[in-house]
Amino acid sequence: MCVCVCVCQMASSNIRYGEGVSREIGMDLQNLGARNVCLMTDKNLSVLPPVKAVLESLSQNGVNYKVYDDVRVEPTDSSFKDAIAFSKNNSFDVFVAVGGGSVIDTCKAANLYACHPDADFLDFVNAPIGKGKPVTGALKPLIAVPTTAGTGSETTGVAIFDFEPLKAKTGIASRALRPTLGIVDPLHTLSMPERVAANSGFDVLCHALESYTALPYNQRSPCPPNPINRPAYQGSNPISDVWSRHALNVVAKFMKRAVRDPEDLEARSSMHLASVFAGIGFGNAGVHLCHGMSYPIAGNVKTHSAKGYSVDHALVPHGLSVVLTSPAVFNFTAPMCPERHLEAAEILGADVRRVKREDAGGVLADTLRQFLLELQVEDGLGALGYSKDDIPALVRGTIPQSQNP
Amino acid sequence: MCVCVCVCQMASSNIRYGEGVSREIGMDLQNLGARNVCLMTDKNLSVLPPVKAVLESLSQNGVNYKVYDDVRVEPTDSSFKDAIAFSKNNSFDVFVAVGGGSVIDTCKAANLYACHPDADFLDFVNAPIGKGKPVTGALKPLIAVPTTAGTGSETTGVAIFDFEPLKAKTGIASRALRPTLGIVDPLHTLSMPERVAANSGFDVLCHALESYTALPYNQRSPCPPNPINRPAYQGSNPISDVWSRHALNVVAKFMKRAVRDPEDLEARSSMHLASVFAGIGFGNAGVHLCHGMSYPIAGNVKTHSAKGYSVDHALVPHGLSVVLTSPAVFNFTAPMCPERHLEAAEILGADVRRVKREDAGGVLADTLRQFLLELQVEDGLGALGYSKDDIPALVRGTIPQSQNP
Ligand SMILES: NC(=O)c1ccc[n+]([C@@H]2O[C@H](COP(=O)([O-])OP(=O)(O)OC[C@H]3O[C@@H](n4cnc5c(N)ncnc54)[C@H](O)[C@@H]3O)[C@@H](O)[C@H]2O)c1
Ligand SMILES: NC(=O)c1ccc[n+]([C@@H]2O[C@H](COP(=O)([O-])OP(=O)(O)OC[C@H]3O[C@@H](n4cnc5c(N)ncnc54)[C@H](O)[C@@H]3O)[C@@H](O)[C@H]2O)c1
Ligand SMILES: [Fe+2]
Ligand SMILES: [Fe+2]
Repeated sequence: MCVCVCVCQMASSNIRYGEGVSREIGMDLQNLGARNVCLMTDKNLSVLPPVKAVLESLSQNGVNYKVYDDVRVEPTDSSFKDAIAFSKNNSFDVFVAVGGGSVIDTCKAANLYACHPDADFLDFVNAPIGKGKPVTGALKPLIAVPTTAGTGSETTGVAIFDFEPLKAKTGIASRALRPTLGIVDPLHTLSMPERVAANSGFDVLCHALESYTALPYNQRSPCPPNPINRPAYQGSNPISDVWSRHALNVVAKFMKRAVRDPEDLEARSSMHLASVFAGIGFGNAGVHLCHGMSYPIAGNVKTHSAKGYSVDHALVPHGLSVVLTSPAVFNFTAPMCPERHLEAAEILGADVRRVKREDAGGVLADTLRQFLLELQVEDGLGALGYSKDDIPALVRGTIPQSQNP
Repeated sequence: MCVCVCVCQMASSNIRYGEGVSREIGMDLQNLGARNVCLMTDKNLSVLPPVKAVLESLSQNGVNYKVYDDVRVEPTDSSFKDAIAFSKNNSFDVFVAVGGGSVIDTCKAANLYACHPDADFLDFVNAPIGKGKPVTGALKPLIAVPTTAGTGSETTGVAIFDFEPLKAKTGIASRALRPTLGIVDPLHTLSMPERVAANSGFDVLCHALESYTALPYNQRSPCPPNPINRPAYQGSNPISDVWSRHALNVVAKFMKRAVRDPEDLEARSSMHLASVFAGIGFGNAGVHLCHGMSYPIAGNVKTHSAKGYSVDHALVPHGLSVVLTSPAVFNFTAPMCPERHLEAAEILGADVRRVKREDAGGVLADTLRQFLLELQVEDGLGALGYSKDDIPALVRGTIPQSQNP
């Protein structure tokens, strides 16, 4: 019998929040005694205000650094390896990631493998694609400065990439990857293009909805008897619920404004914090079907070009690949916990007073469809270039997904 | 000019929550490689189920330990010193505190001074009573198992005691004191006597109300330019607000049930988690007047004997000393942020639809008075044995308080 003394653990990095707070990073690096800092970003961001603000602070505080700006938007195993090689060739003592999830995740991987120079790339990659070995040694401090709102990667111990040989996303998951500090400076989100704000906001929406409707922590099995063997994702629980529900409220209140008006600092700032909240929520509880199905949707991309993403490859942005299936997903999951689905629909603006529990899924699905329509999301998988013939490949890519964010 | 790029930092211990979860502690200690564990508790608890459950787990896992059960309820400098001497005489490698705030705080102090054997007691005590020196060395791991709901001491870096020479409470505050892990097992609260449930619940109520109405983080001054010099208590902010507001909601919903029916596990369990939430909230934002004034109210105690506290000394329990002044305090603070005072009143059950902003303080005060009445709180300072003649001493004891919880 499984006594199910399951748990919930506060599994987040330290977070600092405030307008202009990233200008302090030079002092943080001095306080850490940094002598050789690796600053990672992507080409697009390298000339934008967030990176400029950080570089100025580094110079003002006499911090020695090298810039790596070859991060690939939605990284792959080969782009990870390129960043890893860069880190191995320089002996960095602190890592700084300024960017969205792509940059932060790449930086986590670069730090990991530079500190484990003898490991094979697949050693730490999640099974079944990789060997899923636990990370035993300590990593260098990593400061994450998120510029999207967003993945919540500044709070989590996860790094996601596209494993090109299988056309499927997978990841590396270990508490050791968690940034030492996340510096959440809402001014950094002001330069996000409209579609980046929309897609990264959808990621927040799905992190919140999926973690809130994840299998409860006390119904999870098997229950490893030793707490050290508990999974990072523990199912929804009273602590993650606070984060997820709060993030959902913020999304409902501010996301449309944040997408439509890039100068609405209150809305963009609120969404930036919501991404942190949702990140802590899902980093603790886990996500489920939208994310599980998103990986082959992104990985099998053929021709879809992502507006506003200034990249030269076909791309289904993570947030879009996640949110597209959300109406169908929550229609399907509602019978597991109809009250939570109704509550989510209500938070997102539906009138649920006369709705029966049996109809919770349909109502949440309709509410989400309306939400997506107002935010001008592409209409289904067809609009991304997929046809019926792709279904087997998409299914094949979904089955092995456990709980990558 | 102060640019006020102030911050909020997630300043909590890891927390594990679940019914029966404390039975795992033996494995945690094995995982930590513990060879000589110090288990601290008080005489009363030493024969009750929480301590029994922990001891059983230690035995089952072959963990070597010594018990110190001389913790004083509401500790003093001399009771701290006794516990410190015990720790110095044994070279413990892990500390475990099973009890309320009194036990957890005593254990923090014992760990601190055992790891700094050459320090004078007053070195680390908050100024102006002590020297307020920063803690530089690392402490041993401390696992806190709270049995009240409660102080939130399992999440904070604070240890409070009564400094007898001055008849005033003061404390030691350092992030280094934060427990490595808080094990929140709601089954442990079932044995709390009615008044312990009431008074420790009032502590939760005031942590939530005070941190929610504390000076906002971006109005705090001075602003130390280097983030390392920021105070532990940073003022109310969007992250602590989530915790404080949520804790207040739980108190409103469950506290009366939890006090009245010791077997109402749902209510007691919810209050137990609320104490964690409020602890994270105030550990981040700080508290203000109720706590500031509570220290001389507790410190100058003459004859008041605390029902249900099985102690042989006069005592005004912390939660009682804090909550007594709350109607007056929030009546006084309301003009600083009337909306938040109204929101708090509404959460606690008041109808605020037609209340003007100017009346926010009065309405929250009335709501609190009603709440206290229903929970049969002693009627004001007079009921504790204080008279007009004591006012100068109470004022003298309040002035030097900064922000002890
Ligand atoms: N580690 C995790 O916990 C986690 C969680 C969810 C998603 N992810 C991963 O994160 C990646 C997606 O990250 P993302 O959504 O943050 O976007 P991104 O990092 O891929 O960036 C998207 C685009 O926006 C640009 N951009 C970012 N911030 C900008 C700003 N402030 N101003 C102007 N342009 C800006 C980038 O240059 C890029 O062109 C995916 O690979 C996804 O799988 C990781
Ligand atoms: N460190 C912090 O962050 C912090 C915050 C607030 C208060 N405090 C301090 O904590 C102390 C108060 O702690 P408290 O309110 O938790 O109470 P407590 O530890 O003083 O215990 C009160 C009484 O209840 C008994 N008791 C506790 N748990 C029990 C249980 N499960 N079953 C039966 N009896 C039980 C104790 O034996 C004791 O007699 C004060 O000294 C206060 O200043 C500290
Ligand atoms: Fe995601
Ligand atoms: Fe308190």
